[in-house]
Amino acid sequence: MITVNEHYSKLQASYLFVTIARKVKEFQDVNPDVDLIKLGIGDVTKPLPATCVDAFRKGVDEMADEGSFRGYGPEQGYPFLREAIAKNDFTGMGIEADDIFISDGAKCDTGNFQELFSIDARVAVPDPVYPVYVDTNVMAGRSGTWKNGRYEGLYYLEGNSANGFIPAPPDEKLDLIYLCFPNNPTGQTASHDQLALWVEYAKKNKALILFDAAYETFIRDESLPKSIYEIPGARDVAVEFRSFSKTAGFTGTRCAFTVVPRECRAFTTEGDAVQLQPLWNRRHSTKFNGVSYPVQRAAEAVYSPEGKQQVRELSDYYLGNAAIIRENMEALGFGCIGGENSPYIWVDGKRDSWAFFDLLLSAGVVVTPGSGFGRCGEGYIRISAFNDRNKVLSAMDRIKASIS
Amino acid sequence: MITVNEHYSKLQASYLFVTIARKVKEFQDVNPDVDLIKLGIGDVTKPLPATCVDAFRKGVDEMADEGSFRGYGPEQGYPFLREAIAKNDFTGMGIEADDIFISDGAKCDTGNFQELFSIDARVAVPDPVYPVYVDTNVMAGRSGTWKNGRYEGLYYLEGNSANGFIPAPPDEKLDLIYLCFPNNPTGQTASHDQLALWVEYAKKNKALILFDAAYETFIRDESLPKSIYEIPGARDVAVEFRSFSKTAGFTGTRCAFTVVPRECRAFTTEGDAVQLQPLWNRRHSTKFNGVSYPVQRAAEAVYSPEGKQQVRELSDYYLGNAAIIRENMEALGFGCIGGENSPYIWVDGKRDSWAFFDLLLSAGVVVTPGSGFGRCGEGYIRISAFNDRNKVLSAMDRIKASIS
Repeated sequence: MITVNEHYSKLQASYLFVTIARKVKEFQDVNPDVDLIKLGIGDVTKPLPATCVDAFRKGVDEMADEGSFRGYGPEQGYPFLREAIAKNDFTGMGIEADDIFISDGAKCDTGNFQELFSIDARVAVPDPVYPVYVDTNVMAGRSGTWKNGRYEGLYYLEGNSANGFIPAPPDEKLDLIYLCFPNNPTGQTASHDQLALWVEYAKKNKALILFDAAYETFIRDESLPKSIYEIPGARDVAVEFRSFSKTAGFTGTRCAFTVVPRECRAFTTEGDAVQLQPLWNRRHSTKFNGVSYPVQRAAEAVYSPEGKQQVRELSDYYLGNAAIIRENMEALGFGCIGGENSPYIWVDGKRDSWAFFDLLLSAGVVVTPGSGFGRCGEGYIRISAFNDRNKVLSAMDRIKASIS
Repeated sequence: MITVNEHYSKLQASYLFVTIARKVKEFQDVNPDVDLIKLGIGDVTKPLPATCVDAFRKGVDEMADEGSFRGYGPEQGYPFLREAIAKNDFTGMGIEADDIFISDGAKCDTGNFQELFSIDARVAVPDPVYPVYVDTNVMAGRSGTWKNGRYEGLYYLEGNSANGFIPAPPDEKLDLIYLCFPNNPTGQTASHDQLALWVEYAKKNKALILFDAAYETFIRDESLPKSIYEIPGARDVAVEFRSFSKTAGFTGTRCAFTVVPRECRAFTTEGDAVQLQPLWNRRHSTKFNGVSYPVQRAAEAVYSPEGKQQVRELSDYYLGNAAIIRENMEALGFGCIGGENSPYIWVDGKRDSWAFFDLLLSAGVVVTPGSGFGRCGEGYIRISAFNDRNKVLSAMDRIKASIS
């Protein structure tokens, strides 16, 4: 008899965005004339940069001709892209092309990476959290049961107003630690010193950090690290996830990458160090077959001089929206985090998250209730800066009118 | 301390194609002037069909304009593609668009699907086998240890000259059964009656069939089933994997799909039926983020009238190669399977697989040794028909000259 993976039954049924979609539909059914402004889900709205489009088209053209046609590519990605990434994104950090694995999404990679570890690994996730870190560990059997709004087997790194939503390493021994900066959902960033504490913790406790840097392109403060590999020693203890989704508007185009430095290690149960890179390479080449060739060419174009300028303009545009949102929410008396080096603004709503969500929905603006990201998100909402400037301005007018 | 998934250490290090690559390199180092003809790996060589290229380009153009730009799409794939597939590939089989999950590869899907089941599921794999079925179950911890060339915890469905490489259901109770027709590597096909025995077995034993139909496009014999859903009752007990890789030359473009009929079930340990479709949907939407939009448009074009004609011409071309290979190998006195409704020809080499590989390599032709696909492949080689016609003809001349 074929029996199902029992751990799936522990997954919490009501996924955040499903509930939002239902509430939005209910509102629209009653208010069909309201043109809702959606500042909820973190999806880009501007088209692909022109130079990426040109490269994408050329890639397609190559596939149309027998002489230039490409079949299976390397599962790890083409050298032209891996080399461009190593050279441009990790200058001086000791990261080489072979350390970089091209994939079709940071969601997939952050979800899949836990497969390399034993089921009894003690997992730490931030709270509030990007739900993929949690759900993939539930599926794998590392979560224990759901009780009082949390999984008993996970360790929650609590963010709150006291620590500015940047949890410090705890005294407890943890094995696999998910960190995300600039953070989704809070938009918070971590300093060199704060990340260095985590690197030190990981060394001391033989832990591994899974560092999600999908939003690094929005960092403008030059004192902030864009990569965890700016911290000395991080190559031994950290894997980094990056994506072209937010950097270059690739959410519907699909390309990302994961950095697994050759120095990075885990351990056997006997305590012997094991190099992670060959393990991930084996996983990646067994369960994945590379990213579409024209898409890899489009991603490569991000690193051309024109590409760099165009993606900078993209993130400047969204950061302009973020500044407008933060300024307006603060003017209304709400405490805000994020929005300066991040496309997300984390707003202390001074009331229940869903109540604030409902209030803003009735004003015609969709946001994301912070409680959907975990217990520590209660009382907050996340506002996304990914939208058209005029819509952001209108949304602020609507919120002002409904709050004042 | 972060400890590694101990099951990875059970994986056999020397992956088939790595060994081939090493031998080819050694040969080329000594014989730099020989222009090797590669009939080994099953990768297409002809460009994308013209109508797919047009649709691909239009999809890219849409991404260049703010009005038509697409961000995140549905993880399950766009309705336009799911509907085209259901309508064209599964007419009269009771498969609907919601049963179809678009992905970036059948390798990924056949590798990932086992995640839905308990670790103690008794897994049956064909021998010879497409290695991904085995390796992904090893990684998950279902294989037991490697001993005498096999995993102790897997059940091997043996193919041999007596059963024509179409194993019949055994008396033993198995839970998760991987079948592949047209078969990789043997090129063998299964009849309605033969598949019906497996469907009956799965019903009786509450088992599940994972049916890999990645090569269905090559079936010309109209008496042969192209889908397992042509067998009555199969929707309850079988999941089917398909791909545009071989159908439309998408090996470097990446698009595939998996059919999980709403009737398909597994069981709780208490024996209660559980619908698989929502489980796969949860897995797919948690660990995957959809296929690139322009790629889905390119795949959709396969189902246009021009697309249908162009993909037929593609498979006709490769089948023409296959006929030449089979005819020549038989004329040399070798027994052959496949090559009539499949791009692979499975040749009884009348000697050790690697010895035959080496002999053909010395003649300047690269094939795949059958023993690399499992114990039952010993003595055979797989010849792939994916190449240019002239190269196939030259390869046959070279083989004839070296054998005679």
